[in-house]
Amino acid sequence: MSYRAPVAELAFTLRHVAGLEAALAGSGQGDLTLEDAQAVLEEAGRLAGAVLAPLNRVGDRHGTPLNDGGITTPPGWREAYRTFVEGGWNGLSAPESHGGQGLPHLLNAACTEMWNGANLAFSLCPLLTAGGIEAVEKHGSEALKAAYLEKLVSGEWTATMNLTEPQAGSDLALLRTRAEANGDGSYRITGAKIYITYGEHDLTDNILHLVLARLKDAPAGTRGISLFLVPKVLPDGSRNDLRCSGIEHKLGIHASPTCSMAFGDGGGATGWLIGEENRGLACMFTMMNSARLGVGLQGVAVAEAATQKALAYAQERRQGRAPGAGEGGASPIIAHADVQRMLLTMKAQTAAARGICYLTAAALDAARGSEGQDAYDRASLLTPVAKAFSTDIANEVTSLGVQVHGGMGFVEETGAAQLMRDARILAIYEGTNGIQALDLVGRKLPLNGGATVRAQIAAMREIAEGVLRDNSPAFGHTAARLRAAIESLDRATSFALRALGSNRPEEALAVATPYLRLFGLAQGGACLAKAALAASAAIRAGETDPAHRARIALARFFAENLATASGGLEQSVVDGGGFVQDAKIALAS
Amino acid sequence: MSYRAPVAELAFTLRHVAGLEAALAGSGQGDLTLEDAQAVLEEAGRLAGAVLAPLNRVGDRHGTPLNDGGITTPPGWREAYRTFVEGGWNGLSAPESHGGQGLPHLLNAACTEMWNGANLAFSLCPLLTAGGIEAVEKHGSEALKAAYLEKLVSGEWTATMNLTEPQAGSDLALLRTRAEANGDGSYRITGAKIYITYGEHDLTDNILHLVLARLKDAPAGTRGISLFLVPKVLPDGSRNDLRCSGIEHKLGIHASPTCSMAFGDGGGATGWLIGEENRGLACMFTMMNSARLGVGLQGVAVAEAATQKALAYAQERRQGRAPGAGEGGASPIIAHADVQRMLLTMKAQTAAARGICYLTAAALDAARGSEGQDAYDRASLLTPVAKAFSTDIANEVTSLGVQVHGGMGFVEETGAAQLMRDARILAIYEGTNGIQALDLVGRKLPLNGGATVRAQIAAMREIAEGVLRDNSPAFGHTAARLRAAIESLDRATSFALRALGSNRPEEALAVATPYLRLFGLAQGGACLAKAALAASAAIRAGETDPAHRARIALARFFAENLATASGGLEQSVVDGGGFVQDAKIALAS
Repeated sequence: MSYRAPVAELAFTLRHVAGLEAALAGSGQGDLTLEDAQAVLEEAGRLAGAVLAPLNRVGDRHGTPLNDGGITTPPGWREAYRTFVEGGWNGLSAPESHGGQGLPHLLNAACTEMWNGANLAFSLCPLLTAGGIEAVEKHGSEALKAAYLEKLVSGEWTATMNLTEPQAGSDLALLRTRAEANGDGSYRITGAKIYITYGEHDLTDNILHLVLARLKDAPAGTRGISLFLVPKVLPDGSRNDLRCSGIEHKLGIHASPTCSMAFGDGGGATGWLIGEENRGLACMFTMMNSARLGVGLQGVAVAEAATQKALAYAQERRQGRAPGAGEGGASPIIAHADVQRMLLTMKAQTAAARGICYLTAAALDAARGSEGQDAYDRASLLTPVAKAFSTDIANEVTSLGVQVHGGMGFVEETGAAQLMRDARILAIYEGTNGIQALDLVGRKLPLNGGATVRAQIAAMREIAEGVLRDNSPAFGHTAARLRAAIESLDRATSFALRALGSNRPEEALAVATPYLRLFGLAQGGACLAKAALAASAAIRAGETDPAHRARIALARFFAENLATASGGLEQSVVDGGGFVQDAKIALAS
Repeated sequence: MSYRAPVAELAFTLRHVAGLEAALAGSGQGDLTLEDAQAVLEEAGRLAGAVLAPLNRVGDRHGTPLNDGGITTPPGWREAYRTFVEGGWNGLSAPESHGGQGLPHLLNAACTEMWNGANLAFSLCPLLTAGGIEAVEKHGSEALKAAYLEKLVSGEWTATMNLTEPQAGSDLALLRTRAEANGDGSYRITGAKIYITYGEHDLTDNILHLVLARLKDAPAGTRGISLFLVPKVLPDGSRNDLRCSGIEHKLGIHASPTCSMAFGDGGGATGWLIGEENRGLACMFTMMNSARLGVGLQGVAVAEAATQKALAYAQERRQGRAPGAGEGGASPIIAHADVQRMLLTMKAQTAAARGICYLTAAALDAARGSEGQDAYDRASLLTPVAKAFSTDIANEVTSLGVQVHGGMGFVEETGAAQLMRDARILAIYEGTNGIQALDLVGRKLPLNGGATVRAQIAAMREIAEGVLRDNSPAFGHTAARLRAAIESLDRATSFALRALGSNRPEEALAVATPYLRLFGLAQGGACLAKAALAASAAIRAGETDPAHRARIALARFFAENLATASGGLEQSVVDGGGFVQDAKIALAS
């Protein structure tokens, strides 16, 4: 089966977990109603299901052959891209002043999820363009904006991010690409970049490369890096001195060309500075929250796709007779408890990650409104969790998807394996998940002296209290298990903050990964519980939608079967870090 | 880098965790010394590193094209197979009476690990043949043995297992392949099988297919299944009526042909009964312990290969400056705590799984000696853990291997992704890991009224007590954490045994998967601690091998960072099973 956009579930999460009403009210588009939002979701979902999803397997099989420096996208790709931009989807949350729709990040998050769920390799292209829009809008000169912003917002042109070089992956201080002022406001760029997503393609006439490079005499390290806009086609219509010199043979996202780029083989590519000289990294940082959230949403998306596929297969495939199945042939495997456990794990982890991502998007929206800096700090705190937790569970969920299919899962024909292969990049790009964890512990916990994280934990506690008050037997041990997870997070947070302030901060950083997982479990469990509380209230109010009971059951499953890992993670955080003293010994032999 | 057989570490584990001396003494080859064993390991390791490992990437790239019903193995494959059989490796643990070497299962386990670590797709072929040897030896008539056993033991011919049909994967009751007596002692076989590993290849002149089929008028279900030997080439030199009708396009193990087999297109393939009519499943069961252990060893093997590759990369790749690294350029990433955490997780999980698999092999050896049935029961208890825990961690470890490589891991060139792809089948074939968990809880815990599992837990406790007595500060919290894991396992076991005996046994089966993981953590931690205790004693005795300190550090890491998950798993076992009541609701929408 192919991906179907779960519009009703997304809408429920937007409203009852992330607060869509507030985001709409604060969007500066005062007349935007819930009905409008619903209409946007439905249209975006239709696009996902009807246009993007059918191309997902095609893209995996065809890949993107490179010939004479040009790349051919798979059959149907160009038409789909045209449909996408003609629908105005490319500029959904871009400013209206440049042709965008100015919709809240929150609504854009749900649409991003649907498109990526239908076709990750395709949807990566607009995701990159969104980063370019943000960079040019926030840091570009008026001239750059005038020349490029509308074309990016409309999707007539796409954008790329050129960070990585062979010797500089996670460590941008090692960058070697060089820039030299031409004296006319432009710069000459020379160097080689790798892993450039959609660095070359045939979807549009022009591609705008955002390139990190080092000016002559710039300070060493990350304080000597500047950001440049380097178009494939120059304003005078001539080709710039840059080319795709190769593409990678990758595990997944075969239809997303991953290019090696050569800038300045013929003497220098022409580019223009974005922001100030030597402040390129600061420009990157302003884009980082939304780019990382975008990758987190990709994790949710591919996890949702894998869950749908596994559910459909489990309803059809018949093996064995389930207890209490009565006479007759074999039962559908969904009737077996162990298969149910896998499917529920997939569904619960996906919904938990979705909640975290949407909360993060809502915080970005709130940061533009009256809440301001507090909301921005909350978004900053949640962003590494949204990125890393969602993409970690994407690996787990897509692998479970293969497992549910049994031997069929290992055969490429079913598509379950593709989702697992595609998902595998998400924990790596846009900052590896290890780096997200270091960011969370080292930079985000100390925000406002710890007040930001404490406030977030307090909000989780309130939800757990709500479950206790609800007192519906359908919740089982949810309140107790969720409470335990939150208290584990609270104690682990205190430990980390203390350790950071001690003379051995590396012991806090050594356990950043289990800390992030613990955060994700507590926050994810709280999101599911919040949705379940809304469902419980709706049931009490007489609503009979069976999805409400499903929400309570899912929150309970998560609390009783997954959040139970919290105590062990707390232990690993609090006294697991000692390994840094012995690691050299243990890894020597 | 390519795989290097870790002979010293395997030898240490064989001796100090699994009891190699006892296995050698009980092998009926009283003159077999530790030095002989060491020589076997070293030779087998040389074969792995020099002959099999260099073909691993080649095989992945070439695959096994099917032309006119024939399959071409990748370049070098035939020569490697010849080297393998000419060295006498194929019959390492086969009975001497039929040309084998009669070595203990334990020693064979270590060799199996090394060959599979070097090249999983290649080594699968002899693993299948070993199953064929066991089936014919234990259940075949004297005539069958005389005709086929020596050729199988020498490796001149290979064997396959033909179980699966499109409608019958985990559920063999659904088999439809038919057999009819010819009246001359032979049978006519007709039907279609899928997922037949090495069902066709060009390594040998003949292939012996072991085929499960249903006799006319046989009882329905699994009690009506018989096992047949169906050779590709008949004794008179003519081709039998069977052919490879297709091969699968798979996620991994590309060089291992996965065939669809058509039996009897021309009226019926000729086969001979193995064992009694309608008792085919019983024949399968006797092979199951060693076949499942073989797959567990494949998990250990591919995890070891991934760990070696990641370690080598982490020592070379330089990014960022580690705390305390002093002046100079970037540090090798192995100096970063988060990378150390990943590498230690890989190494510790691999070593833990190895310990469990070797313990299982030692129990199979002991079952042939004076310990008899008790040891056989212990092997039966440990087998599903050896299979499922090892292959679950193989998925995790190979995925971490990709993560350590960062962006390079997602590129096929490095080979890290291949290991992850190859590993993914292991949790599926030879009984999915879900089925292993059901086997452990439903069939193995009740063995001898629970006495078998209790004895195993008591043995783990003794090791934890040993750590407490050792009292070396290098153990950190090892004793406490290991003890906690064992007590969690003990309580979870009591719960499961109670639930099995209650009127809701399905609640025990619903939590079989977390129970198996808990078992693996406690048993794996105990294995590492046992190795560490031997290392600690060696240090006290004046040995200066740095590997001894590494063993203690690894046991500690496992206890403090991985075994900590035990408490949460216990919770999931004890009150997680309630989801079976709500699962239909939660999965409905």
